Amino acid sequence: MRQTFDESTDPSFGPKHVPLIRKAMEAQGLDGFLVPHEDEHQNEYLPQANDRLGWATGFTGSAGAAVILKDKAAIFVDGRYTLQVRDQVDQGLFEIRDLVEGGVPAYLESAVAAGQTIGYDPRLHAPDALERLKAAAAKAGAALKPVAQNPLDLAWSGERPPQPTAPVVPHPLEYAGEDSGSKRARIAKVLAEKNAEATVLTAPASIAWLFNVRGGDVIRSPLPLGQSILNRDGTARLFLDPVKVSPELRAWLGNEVRLETPDDLPAALAELKGKRVLVDPGQSSAWYFDTLAAAGAEVVRGEDPCALPRACKNPVEIAGAQAAHIRDGAAVARFLHWLATEAQDRTVDEIEVVTRLEGFRQETGALKDLSFDTIAGAASNGAIVHYRPTVRLNKQTERGSLLLVDSGAQYLDGTTDITRTVAIGEPSQEMRERFTLVLKGNLALAAVRFPAGTTGSALDALARVPLWAAGLDYDHGTGHGVGSYLGVHEGPQRISKVPNTVALRPGMIVSNEPGYYKEGAYGIRIENLQYVTEAAEVPGGERPMHGFETLTLAPIDRRLIVAEMLTPAERAQLDAYHARVLAEIGPKVDGEVRAWLTAACAPL
Amino acid sequence: MRQTFDESTDPSFGPKHVPLIRKAMEAQGLDGFLVPHEDEHQNEYLPQANDRLGWATGFTGSAGAAVILKDKAAIFVDGRYTLQVRDQVDQGLFEIRDLVEGGVPAYLESAVAAGQTIGYDPRLHAPDALERLKAAAAKAGAALKPVAQNPLDLAWSGERPPQPTAPVVPHPLEYAGEDSGSKRARIAKVLAEKNAEATVLTAPASIAWLFNVRGGDVIRSPLPLGQSILNRDGTARLFLDPVKVSPELRAWLGNEVRLETPDDLPAALAELKGKRVLVDPGQSSAWYFDTLAAAGAEVVRGEDPCALPRACKNPVEIAGAQAAHIRDGAAVARFLHWLATEAQDRTVDEIEVVTRLEGFRQETGALKDLSFDTIAGAASNGAIVHYRPTVRLNKQTERGSLLLVDSGAQYLDGTTDITRTVAIGEPSQEMRERFTLVLKGNLALAAVRFPAGTTGSALDALARVPLWAAGLDYDHGTGHGVGSYLGVHEGPQRISKVPNTVALRPGMIVSNEPGYYKEGAYGIRIENLQYVTEAAEVPGGERPMHGFETLTLAPIDRRLIVAEMLTPAERAQLDAYHARVLAEIGPKVDGEVRAWLTAACAPL
Repeated sequence: MRQTFDESTDPSFGPKHVPLIRKAMEAQGLDGFLVPHEDEHQNEYLPQANDRLGWATGFTGSAGAAVILKDKAAIFVDGRYTLQVRDQVDQGLFEIRDLVEGGVPAYLESAVAAGQTIGYDPRLHAPDALERLKAAAAKAGAALKPVAQNPLDLAWSGERPPQPTAPVVPHPLEYAGEDSGSKRARIAKVLAEKNAEATVLTAPASIAWLFNVRGGDVIRSPLPLGQSILNRDGTARLFLDPVKVSPELRAWLGNEVRLETPDDLPAALAELKGKRVLVDPGQSSAWYFDTLAAAGAEVVRGEDPCALPRACKNPVEIAGAQAAHIRDGAAVARFLHWLATEAQDRTVDEIEVVTRLEGFRQETGALKDLSFDTIAGAASNGAIVHYRPTVRLNKQTERGSLLLVDSGAQYLDGTTDITRTVAIGEPSQEMRERFTLVLKGNLALAAVRFPAGTTGSALDALARVPLWAAGLDYDHGTGHGVGSYLGVHEGPQRISKVPNTVALRPGMIVSNEPGYYKEGAYGIRIENLQYVTEAAEVPGGERPMHGFETLTLAPIDRRLIVAEMLTPAERAQLDAYHARVLAEIGPKVDGEVRAWLTAACAPL
Repeated sequence: MRQTFDESTDPSFGPKHVPLIRKAMEAQGLDGFLVPHEDEHQNEYLPQANDRLGWATGFTGSAGAAVILKDKAAIFVDGRYTLQVRDQVDQGLFEIRDLVEGGVPAYLESAVAAGQTIGYDPRLHAPDALERLKAAAAKAGAALKPVAQNPLDLAWSGERPPQPTAPVVPHPLEYAGEDSGSKRARIAKVLAEKNAEATVLTAPASIAWLFNVRGGDVIRSPLPLGQSILNRDGTARLFLDPVKVSPELRAWLGNEVRLETPDDLPAALAELKGKRVLVDPGQSSAWYFDTLAAAGAEVVRGEDPCALPRACKNPVEIAGAQAAHIRDGAAVARFLHWLATEAQDRTVDEIEVVTRLEGFRQETGALKDLSFDTIAGAASNGAIVHYRPTVRLNKQTERGSLLLVDSGAQYLDGTTDITRTVAIGEPSQEMRERFTLVLKGNLALAAVRFPAGTTGSALDALARVPLWAAGLDYDHGTGHGVGSYLGVHEGPQRISKVPNTVALRPGMIVSNEPGYYKEGAYGIRIENLQYVTEAAEVPGGERPMHGFETLTLAPIDRRLIVAEMLTPAERAQLDAYHARVLAEIGPKVDGEVRAWLTAACAPL
């Protein structure tokens, strides 16, 4: 069993750890210290050894920050985490504030006294965000000071888990579809176009993609933590902890890639003196910018040149994604059959739901990891968007309510991410109507054809219009990019209200996941992955269009659909999808499951 | 007759005028000179006296630039004007280049020699664009130099039309709905929030809105050219040419507004020394930034604080817009009746179409001006998006084709803008199908409900999805803001593929104008103005929503609609719209026109 249901922190973390941090601050002459959620690799998911915010405060959400002053402290979270932070953090110690409205800068302006010195670890802060923090501190008459040794790390030292040391392994060409030399030549061309002589890559996903390697340093995604300098001639220096390196890896990387250790990195950056070096301020911390500037390099700010090529999957990666989704779809079909039969007849709880689903995936024999901890939200827990079942919160399914299950798997050939919402017992008419509105949005975003250059921001509303018409909405994005046996959240494309200027290009995989959440009652989400295609021409069409091809293959609970609310076109689209699910998944499941799937996929 | 059909320039303008400009350049020791389309007020439409680009080159489009060097010259236009520029400009003299791809900076990099000095008039260039030009010149080893006297103006002096001197007049409260003191207090509050002590306003529309005045300096929009400094206490200095000022205007402005002349402006800016001054780099030229910096003021860059309040019309302005649209709708009904009867029986040409429409509007007795020159595009001329009929281009209507008419009027109570496309004779099935796709997009954008915070960029795709599905699209925005007896194009909101972060707010007026253009054959556009409302609640709705209320009232040509392509909901929406047109406009027209309107507005 991979997923666990315990909690790694509790509200005593703050009272236990903040005094230790304050002592270490004092020893360095600091009046305060900034604790961001991000680690040295600006990861979304952190190795436990790098969850400094969690250790300092107890808060384990995927975004946030804390400021620890000598006599007070504050924690900052966004709207998704307002409930969770109250549950996890000692409010006697930490004032809870909004991460977005005002955020850390406003707090620094008001809470810090003139003449004070606030420390920060330059390896943990994005350069632009840091500039805003510096300006805010200056307004208060205080100064931010980079530390050579992070006082939190010094305070944590005794009980801190070790840094991850999972081996970095080759990601074979049968999955990657393009060898590293070809990828490096492509990126080198981008450097030439930007008149840059080198780029410093720090995003683990870019390291993984560029060198065709995978690691195990970060739970739920096969990311190798490391850095690289890629030169304009296509050669590279790759900085990895030697314990992660095997002779097989050395051979795989070939002689154009020099393997070095993280300790070699500062000297390697210093050698870039006088050169134009491309660095992504969204991926690399202020430390890289400071170090390169001090070395006399000319820093060119720009997007990580691997981000866009990585997002556009090649035909081998798309074929892998299709195979992974058929394999995963068969496991999900067995799970949905279980939910539709055994789990309807007796009461089950969220932990059993998660355990069963992981079991079915494990039985594929190909499961490398979950792609994230399964969210199984029964009844009112389904309305908590970032819910994860724990022993303490675990809830039994309720008859006459809904169960929302959002899950995914990591296979060598692809990463999956699927949400299905199913009725337990007899759903109410309101549940069915709202489910159907969510379904209409999902169908619209699956069917749309659009010209080259269209961004995800331009398409987001298509998934919301049916809900909007009913006075409803959901407070999360509609779609995120997905990696190829990499992170389940991957940029640069996104389908969201938040403006995003990245055009959707063929090969990009995105999720399509509108939802509806009734606080204290139930949650609905329907999520399929789909990839961007060159759409087939239509008679009379004048312009080439892009479209989407759905990857995820699993039936949508027909007990929750009000058929009369669908247009004939929507009905035909859903029927065609279900026919495809049956054709692709039917042969992969046996007996009772196949019979159930056949009924579940029948035309409406 | 207000609209004329002659051409104000011809391709001989370049050969006649460039030598004069080069002589004036040489006298100032310049190797080149930059000629932007924009004038001192960064207007979209220019007084003829300020159309420097037109005089230098012959090109009269609404965007563009030229660079005149000693021995060569280039003109820069965007994709909308590639045909027009070839028609208007001598290509032996001017190289034609793309304004967007590469643009002026790329030309400076390649065409200018090291050591050369290129002049520019700082009053004509936005500061950010100027920085890019300076960087490009520097790459070529050349320098940009501001001129005290514009060499083009010196060359033009003899035959240049006089600067406009239309009187500035009060815009009464019965149309404005809020007095200037109240508006100034609101903007002063914005200044206080930004910790600014004053703002320099240079956008004519902001001057007009803030002081409740209108002018006549710019054709087709009642804009007064002038500048203002608004202080944080709500008092203001207003700089207007004294010939435009009457005793009545002085009395109207009251004693919190000091009237001065444009000659007083430099000294007034110098008095801002040491103060924080808000200036909009999108509205005010580099000259303001340079002058304020030289004076020792602290310039705060930010959006013109009048832009958003001006865009959100108050209830009096909305009531005025409704009255204006009923008045205009009656004139348009008479025009459409004429098109449906007399103009079907004999051949008419575009000039007659324009003349008739202006005549019907004139007969309302309330017409102050057209809001832009009427576009009447018969058959293939309809496919030219920025077409304007002239004696030379004038085309007769063709049986079996379409006529596209885009027009608008300025009334004291509101500005209108409407496009209708009508069949002349029997339209083809293709024309009807494509018209119906455009109509579906228009209906979707009229019916949508959306939450607060939604931008026009998020809604743009709704108007395109039916065309996209058929492999079609249109290469212009879907909607622009519209002023209240002000410019027919007004920011900051916009419904467009181009990312725009301005949320649509109640009271904003926008156009809804999807189209389809078949080059060399015909053009289709359906345009209504609509304003943002607080949408009525629906049963079960949980969140307040915004919606649109349509202002424009005129039938849509039913001969061009394929009824079976509409959903029942779309049909009901169109029938309801037509019923409303008949109810509102029917009582305003007589006899034959009313009978025709009744038939035109019958349910499909």
